Amino acid sequence: MPVVGMVGGGQLARMTQQAAIALGVRLRVLAENPADSAATVCADVRIGTHTSLEDLRAFAEGCDVVTWDHEHVPGEHIRALEAEGVVCLPGSAALLHAQDKLVMRERLSALGAPCPDFAAVHTVDDVTRFAEKHGWPVVVKAVRGGYDGKGVWIVRAPEEAAEVVASGTALMVEECVDFRRELAALVARSPHGQGAAYPVVETVQQDGICVEVVAPAEGLSEDTAAEAQRLALQIADQLGVVGLLAVELFETEDGVIVNELAMRPHNSGHWTTDGSPTSQFEQHLRAVLDLPLGDTGTHSPWTVMGNLLGGDDPDLYPRYEHCMAHDPGLKIHFYGKEVRPGRKIGHVNVMGDDLPRLRARAEHASLYLRDPGLVYPEEGK
Amino acid sequence: MPVVGMVGGGQLARMTQQAAIALGVRLRVLAENPADSAATVCADVRIGTHTSLEDLRAFAEGCDVVTWDHEHVPGEHIRALEAEGVVCLPGSAALLHAQDKLVMRERLSALGAPCPDFAAVHTVDDVTRFAEKHGWPVVVKAVRGGYDGKGVWIVRAPEEAAEVVASGTALMVEECVDFRRELAALVARSPHGQGAAYPVVETVQQDGICVEVVAPAEGLSEDTAAEAQRLALQIADQLGVVGLLAVELFETEDGVIVNELAMRPHNSGHWTTDGSPTSQFEQHLRAVLDLPLGDTGTHSPWTVMGNLLGGDDPDLYPRYEHCMAHDPGLKIHFYGKEVRPGRKIGHVNVMGDDLPRLRARAEHASLYLRDPGLVYPEEGK
Repeated sequence: MPVVGMVGGGQLARMTQQAAIALGVRLRVLAENPADSAATVCADVRIGTHTSLEDLRAFAEGCDVVTWDHEHVPGEHIRALEAEGVVCLPGSAALLHAQDKLVMRERLSALGAPCPDFAAVHTVDDVTRFAEKHGWPVVVKAVRGGYDGKGVWIVRAPEEAAEVVASGTALMVEECVDFRRELAALVARSPHGQGAAYPVVETVQQDGICVEVVAPAEGLSEDTAAEAQRLALQIADQLGVVGLLAVELFETEDGVIVNELAMRPHNSGHWTTDGSPTSQFEQHLRAVLDLPLGDTGTHSPWTVMGNLLGGDDPDLYPRYEHCMAHDPGLKIHFYGKEVRPGRKIGHVNVMGDDLPRLRARAEHASLYLRDPGLVYPEEGK
Repeated sequence: MPVVGMVGGGQLARMTQQAAIALGVRLRVLAENPADSAATVCADVRIGTHTSLEDLRAFAEGCDVVTWDHEHVPGEHIRALEAEGVVCLPGSAALLHAQDKLVMRERLSALGAPCPDFAAVHTVDDVTRFAEKHGWPVVVKAVRGGYDGKGVWIVRAPEEAAEVVASGTALMVEECVDFRRELAALVARSPHGQGAAYPVVETVQQDGICVEVVAPAEGLSEDTAAEAQRLALQIADQLGVVGLLAVELFETEDGVIVNELAMRPHNSGHWTTDGSPTSQFEQHLRAVLDLPLGDTGTHSPWTVMGNLLGGDDPDLYPRYEHCMAHDPGLKIHFYGKEVRPGRKIGHVNVMGDDLPRLRARAEHASLYLRDPGLVYPEEGK
């Protein structure tokens, strides 16, 4: 049976282990720390850092494929591994588009994919000139390394731009898209070119963090859903992605516009573990191993995923009792991470026919697990 | 988060790890060998043997609950652990009924549960006397340690009985039940007394090994299904079982009769991983941790499980490609065991509406993974 190495010991590697167990595939993870989310649930754990080529090289030894739990592995390290014959999937050339937002925008625009207008930013003037053309506010983004709302600034005036530019981070600017809601199209592509698309979902963000996913997106026209899936499959194909590709989208009056790309299992696909015959984690393994892709159908008309954010109380296990008794169909996924306020520490899934009820169930569990006082004020501190 | 210790490193512990990952529960396994099925997928593996009280004692240190991957832990060892304050679930008093078939028959008969007539066997005369009353053939069983058809003999004459008795194993005899088919009722019970029943399934055996499970059992009357579930819940309650209880049943003209008991995740419940919101492995963890039990509903009208038995070719991974391409909805579960002819090395699940088609799909995959020549003779050796 093949050995798949996943660089990074986060929750994505953790959940990939569940899929690897069923397939009999051996998952090796490179974790910074033995207490990392995936390191506590895998038998084959190597301790090291993704910023060290030496650690990566030692890790890759004996792996049939190396893949990624996150986008932070330096491109030059991946290229070095590739030059030494390590099979890295997605490869450095594709992954660059999930690592560098400016490269991504340039490439997607050249391919004709719908994107917001954008420009590189070196000085405050670059922002001001862009805003004079597109109107304030504008969105300034770190070109690399942003996530969960970090590295994104809504800038309303030159003075605000000056503050961000002063940070010295490589930046770009984009027009502020007037969108109805955010969607995500998750697809997989294998080396021999097979593609598979999951239903397009709606993602609901609060303060830049995804708090809820509804699968499929409610009231989405068949045409727009098909357009989004086709767009994601095309991007996967044109960028040579192998594995999963999550395309975060804005739904506007005129159709969908690409927001971000991720080339790994993605928060917008966590619903698949309980809501689809093929979890995104299994699909990613199948894709990087060049196995035929799995059924992307759904078990129920609706699946709702609610993210669990940490509250003040670090011990959420005692709160399992209420949630499980309250809702026997609730699926809890805990990442084994130390609980810190606002940190993503897990998620819940619920499946069924009645969407408003499912959303209420997911919200109840997410809030209760965070802090019972959010649901039952009389239990609050 | 609690630590659950599972004694035994087999596939049941392996699949329990998948459920433990989601719940954030730490699963520790006691494996004989680092290459054991569960030992290759868990982070917390202790090497030792279940026949050594010392190994068990060291293993239990720091576990919140100790539970079992199999029935072979000596009762006196479990009682010793219990006396030392280790929480063992199911406990020795309940587990005895899954370890000793004669004790089980005596107890269930006393409780009024429908059982075949039976008697203890010390001499060939015991068998002959029993057969003169009930007619040949009779079923002679090892009182302890049988599984997958091992330890069960259909005996047609005193000479055949003599051969079995000569083995020196502790034996019992039962009447040969004239049954239509075999069923299994899987339930869970928690320390605070909550019970939950999965739909009653049909199990299909070949040469004493389960080859197929159909969930729910086709054409089973609502009355018989409810009777079987009630019976299993009653047995769990009356024996004080905590965790899962699988009751293997014969369906006869007059209703159901108890065949065997198992107090752990069971082959007849492997369909739940893909066919129900709550897998039997998660349910077992919830029960032994005294968490509220999960939804035992189904995703689809039918789920069919096919066991994978080893063939001559030890490397079945190359055969994944055909099976996955042939059937994208097929769920493969491989146990990471060395392939040996006839050995249970995994199973497949398929879910859907069309039962004959599902059975054909499961059979195709089971046979192909065993030996492509069984499906495509022209590919045979």
